[in-house]
This record gives sequence, structure tokens and C-alpha cells, in this order.
Amino acid sequence: MLVRSQVKYIQSLAHKKFRDEQAVFVAEGPKLVGELLVSGNTPAVDIFGVRDWIDAQPRHPGKSTGHSPYHEVSASELERLSTLTTPNQVVGIFRKPVFPSPDFDQSVTLLLDGIQDPGNLGTIVRIADWFGIRQVVCSPECADVFNAKTVQSTMGSICRVQVLYDELAGWIGRHADLPSYAAVLDGVSLYQLKKIRRGIIVIGNESHGIRQELLTRIAHPLTIPRIGNAESLNAAVATGIILSHVVG
Amino acid sequence: MLVRSQVKYIQSLAHKKFRDEQAVFVAEGPKLVGELLVSGNTPAVDIFGVRDWIDAQPRHPGKSTGHSPYHEVSASELERLSTLTTPNQVVGIFRKPVFPSPDFDQSVTLLLDGIQDPGNLGTIVRIADWFGIRQVVCSPECADVFNAKTVQSTMGSICRVQVLYDELAGWIGRHADLPSYAAVLDGVSLYQLKKIRRGIIVIGNESHGIRQELLTRIAHPLTIPRIGNAESLNAAVATGIILSHVVG
Repeated sequence: MLVRSQVKYIQSLAHKKFRDEQAVFVAEGPKLVGELLVSGNTPAVDIFGVRDWIDAQPRHPGKSTGHSPYHEVSASELERLSTLTTPNQVVGIFRKPVFPSPDFDQSVTLLLDGIQDPGNLGTIVRIADWFGIRQVVCSPECADVFNAKTVQSTMGSICRVQVLYDELAGWIGRHADLPSYAAVLDGVSLYQLKKIRRGIIVIGNESHGIRQELLTRIAHPLTIPRIGNAESLNAAVATGIILSHVVG
Repeated sequence: MLVRSQVKYIQSLAHKKFRDEQAVFVAEGPKLVGELLVSGNTPAVDIFGVRDWIDAQPRHPGKSTGHSPYHEVSASELERLSTLTTPNQVVGIFRKPVFPSPDFDQSVTLLLDGIQDPGNLGTIVRIADWFGIRQVVCSPECADVFNAKTVQSTMGSICRVQVLYDELAGWIGRHADLPSYAAVLDGVSLYQLKKIRRGIIVIGNESHGIRQELLTRIAHPLTIPRIGNAESLNAAVATGIILSHVVG
């Protein structure tokens, strides 16, 4: 059974401030929670599941010792904890993943300038994971990657892709030796590029693009050639297309 | 000022049945409404805008004759009409676009098998438009392209891309001479394909993929090679990547 303090605690985690203080985040649904439980990188703090879900879990350390993170809740209790329109069996609180120091010099890093839509950000993290990108650097205006909606959109990639926040102009300045690419509307055709094994790729905010102060630091502005008439592509879709051509 | 019957009418258009009966759909926001107003393909039926928006419109036939589709509403009236979290100046009712008969034999057609998420469907229509695809055939299980959320996600491409609904197995059977491609998990690498100028590309439901009865009719199953660990890609992202390689 849920106690009031538990409900309040989980609800407080809707706020970045509390997630940061506790270094935890919330994930929902059997698939995502199941993946995080075995990731080895996101220790479970508390897992609130309906009986059917709990019963289906393999035995785990602590399940029978009283130190178990598993708590059985009723369907209506789950509804109080969930941020989903349709609550889905389980709500879990996990420690934020910890990653080894990234090797920016020998890999491709994705830089995001002001991706404010939480779903877009999560989808981009998932795309990065598909293409083997291990780190994403977000400008401070980007959504928080541990936002509930972002976590859900990553579909588990949040435990495999390291997402950092930094001022991008300074960051690019400190990595000026890396080949730099950026998605713009009037650059070189993406299809003319060779594959890259190291460097940075900057994706901008969908409405405003990439800030000028960043663009001036980018050696290779590139464009996805347009054949038809749509004015733009969604930032996540553009990211997928670019990565498929330059690292795929 | 809004009258009650107008409010009820617009609210009824949240239902596919009423949209179909009237052959109309709803679009919101200055950018999308502005684009539809000049499309030549989606005549305006009624446009409800706040004063600032109305005042900013160019003179148009009927604006001063009493036959104008423009109605001024207050911010709170707009809120009653809008389906957006943040209503945005204008809500418009438009006639559904009418297209010339598609030439399936001489172009690329996108087939969607069970894309149920309205936002995903709209994003795919927008991607099709970017890559010059003029027609999309949806299985009956797909979301309705005139759903409010889908219309918004198309960002105006709904007036340029013809979206049809049909049983896909029968449709493919009737176009058996066309080269056929489908996104699957264990096909030929997308990167080995040559560009195509005619044919069909089938995209499946994200959770369940493409139905077996369709897959058996597809000559060229293809796959976006995975480097990292994400289990899948969002259907819209996959569509963008595939189109950039085969028609881009």
C-alpha cells in the first residue's frame, strides 16, 4: 500500500530541482522499467508495480529480505503516481546513470542547440543510441533529459547515451580541433559528405535553427536537400537522416 | 461574437464522422492557417481569429461583403474552440484538399501499415512532402489524417500530399508491377540500394512492424543498419532516413 509521503515524493520528481537533488528519475511501463532494471547503470530506488507485474519479475536480491525496492500497488494507486494518460503496470524511480569520461577526440558527439520539446529530445537520444553515438551535449535551453516525457521517448537509450549540459560556444571553442558539422538550410548537400569517425554535429532548435554565434565556429554547414515543398523537417527526423549518412 | 451553434459545430469536428460528412477539417495557429489560406487547394469555410490576427490579414474577396469567412473572437472564445494546450490566435475550418488522380506508375508512393499515432502520421506526411512524395496510402487502421493533431503535425503539407486509405494487400496486388520496398529488421542494408524513381515503400507500425500478409508481397525488404543498441527507431524517423537514401 502507498503511503502519502511516497506519493508526494514521486510527484515532487516532476520538478527538475528535486530530481537533481536526489540524482534520480522516473520511468514507467514494463518495457522501459524492465530494461532499466537490467541495465547495470541505473540502480532501482523504488519500483511500484501492480501485482501481475510484480509476480512476473524474476527473483532478485532483496526481494525476500525486506530491502526490496519492489512495492505492490493497486491500479488506482498506480494512477496517482503515473504521468501517463494510460498508466502501464509499473512506475519506477532509478538513480541517474553514471558514465565513464567521454572520449570526445575519438568519437562523434551530437550537440543540441535549444531542443526544447521533451519528446523530440528523447527521440534524438534514441536515434543517437541507434547510430552508436555515445554522448550528446545540450545547450542549457534544452529540455531536461530526465523529464518524464523525455525519459519515455528515449525508450531505454537514456541508460546508454551520456547527456551533458554546457554552453555550446565555449564547448566548441575547447574542442576546436574536431571537425565540425551543423544542419542548416543553405549548406553543402549532406549527400556529398564522406563518413566521419570523429567530430561534432550540431542540431538546432526547429523554429530558430542554430544560433549565429555557434554557426561561425562550424567548418562544415550541411543541408538535407529538399525535393518537395515542406518548409522544414522535424529536428529529430533531421538528426536521423544526417546520422544515417555521416556515421551510418 | 461566437454563438453556441458555432462552438458546437467546431467541437463536433473532433469526430471523424462529422469531418467526413462535411468534408472539412480544423487547423490552428497563424502559420498553418496562413499557409492553408493561400494553398489554393483548401478553401476556407470559417476562420475564427482574435482581432490582432484579423487586422493583420490582407484584404480578401468577401472581407467587406458579408460573405467573409472571417469571424473575430475574443481570447476566451478562441480557447473554447481550440484543441491546443496554448491556443494560438486563430482556428480555421477548411475544405479537405482535392487532388488530381495520382500517377502511381511514374512516382514513388509511401504505404503506411497501421501508423496509429496522430503526431507520427502528420510528421510522416511532412517528410513525404520534403522528399517530393505526392501520395501516401494508409491502411484503414492508421490514424485519420484530418485528426486535429495530425493536421498540426503536417505543418501545412496536408494541402500538398494526397493521403488515401485502402486495404494495403489488395492495393499492392493491383500494383504488382511496381518495385516494392519495405522497412524491416532483417532486410538488405538500406545503404546498398540505388535511388528509385518509381515504386512503393511500406512503413509498418512501430510495435508490430508490417503485417506478414504484406511482407510476402514485397520484393525488397530493407533495413537501416544499427551500430549502437537502441531497439528500434521511431516510424517517422525511419521514414525520413529511408527516403533520404532512396529518393533524396
